[in-house]
Amino acid sequence: MTHSPIGGLWPALFTPVDQNGNPDFQQLEKIVELCIKQKLDGLYVLGSTGQGFLFSEKQRMDITQTVMETVNGAMPVIAQVGALNTRESIRLAQAAQEQGVYGISTVGPIYYQSGVRNALEHYKAIGSSIDIPFFPYHIGNHSVFGGDARHYIEQILTLPNIAGMKLTTQNLYEVSLIHILSQDKLVLFSGADELFCQATLCGTVGAIGSFFNLWGEECKFVREEFIKGNFELGNRFMLTFQEIIHDVLPNIWSFFHQAMLLKHDINIGLPNPPLGMGNGEWNEKDVLEICDRISAVTGLVSN
Amino acid sequence: MTHSPIGGLWPALFTPVDQNGNPDFQQLEKIVELCIKQKLDGLYVLGSTGQGFLFSEKQRMDITQTVMETVNGAMPVIAQVGALNTRESIRLAQAAQEQGVYGISTVGPIYYQSGVRNALEHYKAIGSSIDIPFFPYHIGNHSVFGGDARHYIEQILTLPNIAGMKLTTQNLYEVSLIHILSQDKLVLFSGADELFCQATLCGTVGAIGSFFNLWGEECKFVREEFIKGNFELGNRFMLTFQEIIHDVLPNIWSFFHQAMLLKHDINIGLPNPPLGMGNGEWNEKDVLEICDRISAVTGLVSN
Amino acid sequence: MTHSPIGGLWPALFTPVDQNGNPDFQQLEKIVELCIKQKLDGLYVLGSTGQGFLFSEKQRMDITQTVMETVNGAMPVIAQVGALNTRESIRLAQAAQEQGVYGISTVGPIYYQSGVRNALEHYKAIGSSIDIPFFPYHIGNHSVFGGDARHYIEQILTLPNIAGMKLTTQNLYEVSLIHILSQDKLVLFSGADELFCQATLCGTVGAIGSFFNLWGEECKFVREEFIKGNFELGNRFMLTFQEIIHDVLPNIWSFFHQAMLLKHDINIGLPNPPLGMGNGEWNEKDVLEICDRISAVTGLVSN
Amino acid sequence: MTHSPIGGLWPALFTPVDQNGNPDFQQLEKIVELCIKQKLDGLYVLGSTGQGFLFSEKQRMDITQTVMETVNGAMPVIAQVGALNTRESIRLAQAAQEQGVYGISTVGPIYYQSGVRNALEHYKAIGSSIDIPFFPYHIGNHSVFGGDARHYIEQILTLPNIAGMKLTTQNLYEVSLIHILSQDKLVLFSGADELFCQATLCGTVGAIGSFFNLWGEECKFVREEFIKGNFELGNRFMLTFQEIIHDVLPNIWSFFHQAMLLKHDINIGLPNPPLGMGNGEWNEKDVLEICDRISAVTGLVSN
Repeated sequence: MTHSPIGGLWPALFTPVDQNGNPDFQQLEKIVELCIKQKLDGLYVLGSTGQGFLFSEKQRMDITQTVMETVNGAMPVIAQVGALNTRESIRLAQAAQEQGVYGISTVGPIYYQSGVRNALEHYKAIGSSIDIPFFPYHIGNHSVFGGDARHYIEQILTLPNIAGMKLTTQNLYEVSLIHILSQDKLVLFSGADELFCQATLCGTVGAIGSFFNLWGEECKFVREEFIKGNFELGNRFMLTFQEIIHDVLPNIWSFFHQAMLLKHDINIGLPNPPLGMGNGEWNEKDVLEICDRISAVTGLVSN
Repeated sequence: MTHSPIGGLWPALFTPVDQNGNPDFQQLEKIVELCIKQKLDGLYVLGSTGQGFLFSEKQRMDITQTVMETVNGAMPVIAQVGALNTRESIRLAQAAQEQGVYGISTVGPIYYQSGVRNALEHYKAIGSSIDIPFFPYHIGNHSVFGGDARHYIEQILTLPNIAGMKLTTQNLYEVSLIHILSQDKLVLFSGADELFCQATLCGTVGAIGSFFNLWGEECKFVREEFIKGNFELGNRFMLTFQEIIHDVLPNIWSFFHQAMLLKHDINIGLPNPPLGMGNGEWNEKDVLEICDRISAVTGLVSN
Repeated sequence: MTHSPIGGLWPALFTPVDQNGNPDFQQLEKIVELCIKQKLDGLYVLGSTGQGFLFSEKQRMDITQTVMETVNGAMPVIAQVGALNTRESIRLAQAAQEQGVYGISTVGPIYYQSGVRNALEHYKAIGSSIDIPFFPYHIGNHSVFGGDARHYIEQILTLPNIAGMKLTTQNLYEVSLIHILSQDKLVLFSGADELFCQATLCGTVGAIGSFFNLWGEECKFVREEFIKGNFELGNRFMLTFQEIIHDVLPNIWSFFHQAMLLKHDINIGLPNPPLGMGNGEWNEKDVLEICDRISAVTGLVSN
Repeated sequence: MTHSPIGGLWPALFTPVDQNGNPDFQQLEKIVELCIKQKLDGLYVLGSTGQGFLFSEKQRMDITQTVMETVNGAMPVIAQVGALNTRESIRLAQAAQEQGVYGISTVGPIYYQSGVRNALEHYKAIGSSIDIPFFPYHIGNHSVFGGDARHYIEQILTLPNIAGMKLTTQNLYEVSLIHILSQDKLVLFSGADELFCQATLCGTVGAIGSFFNLWGEECKFVREEFIKGNFELGNRFMLTFQEIIHDVLPNIWSFFHQAMLLKHDINIGLPNPPLGMGNGEWNEKDVLEICDRISAVTGLVSN
């Protein structure tokens, strides 16, 4: 299967879990079906939001398998394969390629971080183990600024199978610089939900985010309208959205759990610890009120 | 004189200097006249760009005087009065009020920085010494994130004469949060030239920047068109502009010197050291080519 | 088995591996035997140096088992059980307790880091799963400074089974403050090899480090002499040691590999990637010369 | 006058001020006389502690003049000449040389900071304006680590009149590295009071600090005893001293004011704002009790 040029709005797909933290494949199918129904532009699986780092190698392969079978060609899928051990990442990358994903993504070294040189070696090992598009993360804040920016991007461009990057930063100048220095050779996704409209002005083709599981339809609508020239909608939506993100952040996992249940009838469970540890509870009324604020801005009454 | 609600595009006005680093009042008049002719929305004087911290107290008062006389009510002026010694800032603030400025701005403590509590005391002392609008800077990166954001903004809102803030950060989520948490009670200016269009989506009413001395007309045009819905122009302009900023940054002062001379026939001189120390030279051709790139995007052939 | 109060010099034990990155249990026994012969004061297993985060759960349990059988009560052992998933840490902690370790240590949340509150929950879950001494890491740089230091330490002191901490920081004032604020209730180990003598002045009872695998005898001798009043030896040794650390750091894993082979006839292998990726090779002569410099300062001709 | 090799314990001399923030020359003489009587090893004037950045150029020259006349050759004096404008620093440096100081020190660029290259130009301009020993500050945290450390120190060593450095950092490894990389060619002073004994193990010849105005005799005694081998005294003293520093830090200026009055009958006044803004008051009993704790550790009943 081939895809037209990728981009647009991609959920960093939740991986629903049961009470022991194991994948709940039935709910996983439901959430993938929701994304298809809402005509979202792609799925980013097993990233930070998808608890990628909290499952066993076998579980990660099973999750990708279920997603691929459910998607069944409806949209491109990128699998995040970052792991503590580079060898595990390679095995995950090769399995995902076998399973038919569009591309592979990976974070840089997780615990053993010793600078850009080391991260690039890690990327090189993973990128060269596959034959499909490769989307590494941007490495830290320091690599784009200062005199070495050009050199850093040159090295990124020589990675095997390099296709683009996922840029999870609130510093939008960094995003633009990567676009500029790579001279249009990288397909860039912004990763900060709270700035997804602003990031369209920085050379990105798409946005990947957690909140797009919940409000995928609304965010896709706003992003497209904004690009068409509806500044006022983009502006109004982003301020409301940012306010909500700020409010739910300290208890974000219990919020997502409740909100997905109430809005989409999908039980994503509570994530594996340490994720979500210490999150307080939400009452239904507050969650619904937050959802209403989003609907009020977009004028969409989804579901 | 009263002003309608302020906002729009404000140059962080250059202060032209002679070879000894003393203000060149004749060139200062010329640059103010240029801004008036281009119908820019206001002037921010003696900030970082205006070498505010590199002049004596007496020189700063004389500079503000010349600006006020030349502006002669054509646009609002905000004077930056930050200094190492809070007492000096107070004297500068009171003199500027006498001279008829619209408002006062100040950076936080410069050398002796001991946290938010101390900075707020410094702001309080300056704000209470005047009776006109007060626009302090945002204090560091840490105050808006984490649990204390609301408390920090509450304290800002209780400062005497508080009217707004100058937010010089590339983290646009920080800008939005200050807007949201202050519930529309602060007039916010973004201070990062390289993100001036993006920042219009974050609750700001205006942008203050160095490059607006050079390309004030072009940037004002782009900003207004973008807000009206010309996404494509905003997008194209910002990427070109950011690329240029990245290229000139290592030798920015010699660039400004040459470019102001070539484009506007104004000699701003080379700034007082340490500003600009180590800047290499530019040849005329490269500077003109950069100016042409800006003209090509906007379609404006200014001057 | 009971131990007298712990402290002194502890290697952060290497875990020798074969070419596929699997534990080499035979070489592991040899390195444990070396530490016993040198009368080192304890063993810290499966920390960063011991590649703890790069093995499977099963491998980690097997490694601890081999260490415990070889040590056979000769010295206390602390097992580091940090993992991406808190549930895995708990299983590792309980297994290590079964295997007879003196205590458990753990790093804070590895990938999913959301502040001190979250880290303390993670620690609480691990500490409460066992009945033996618990030694969490210090969480980040920010928690001891500012007004919250006292509160942070109070919370540490209420962790189940809390016995002490491993403090891997080059900021020695931070170490002292934790000692002072905990009022002697925490057994503190410093974790920065390069400052092990300096850290004896900061309320620590012992030092844990990578280089103590290689120069355990020498470092133990220097530490004890320094505490007895031999300032001159401590001073001279630390400067030489720091110079060597600085020189080998960019290629530290290939250095350790070669040096352990040459000095102790133990093959620790090359670590699992990303650890050591991009390390250049060492020639035998340079490695031996470095070892000679250490011998020259201490006057000890070990092996 | 020539001095034997410098080093030892140097107060970062307080500059007593009256209620308007102007220098109190009578009290200044008294504090210099106290330092002479206590046989301290030198005086560092007009640094951060001496409010150097809060006086006018003329006041700074007058202060140095009074110090030099009172010292009258009894000990070496280093004058800190850092200012916002490099030209002002040069004028201050040349005046201080005229006034007979042993050497000049300066911080890096204060407000306009644009990296190491710029700071080195600033240092070069100041160092080349005089003919006496030059002691710049260490520039930021980043310059010694990473691959550029050697290059950075090489550039420091080529500065005109370079004699040594003042290293105000709690990261003692950084101090050692500068010593090692400069191959004994720099006279290094540590600047963190709270680690003055630990820093003797890092290649420093002396310590400069604020608290040495108050407890100069005690700290000099402890430092010398510690170097002679009295580990126990050094250890005990540092922990008490650090605890006190931590306790007084949030209100340090009102503490110094009270303590200097009570212990030495010298009125240093309250510093120019923003320094000390927001400091709470101390009662006499608490201040005396703190002084007693220092006396108790050293066994010295000074004054």
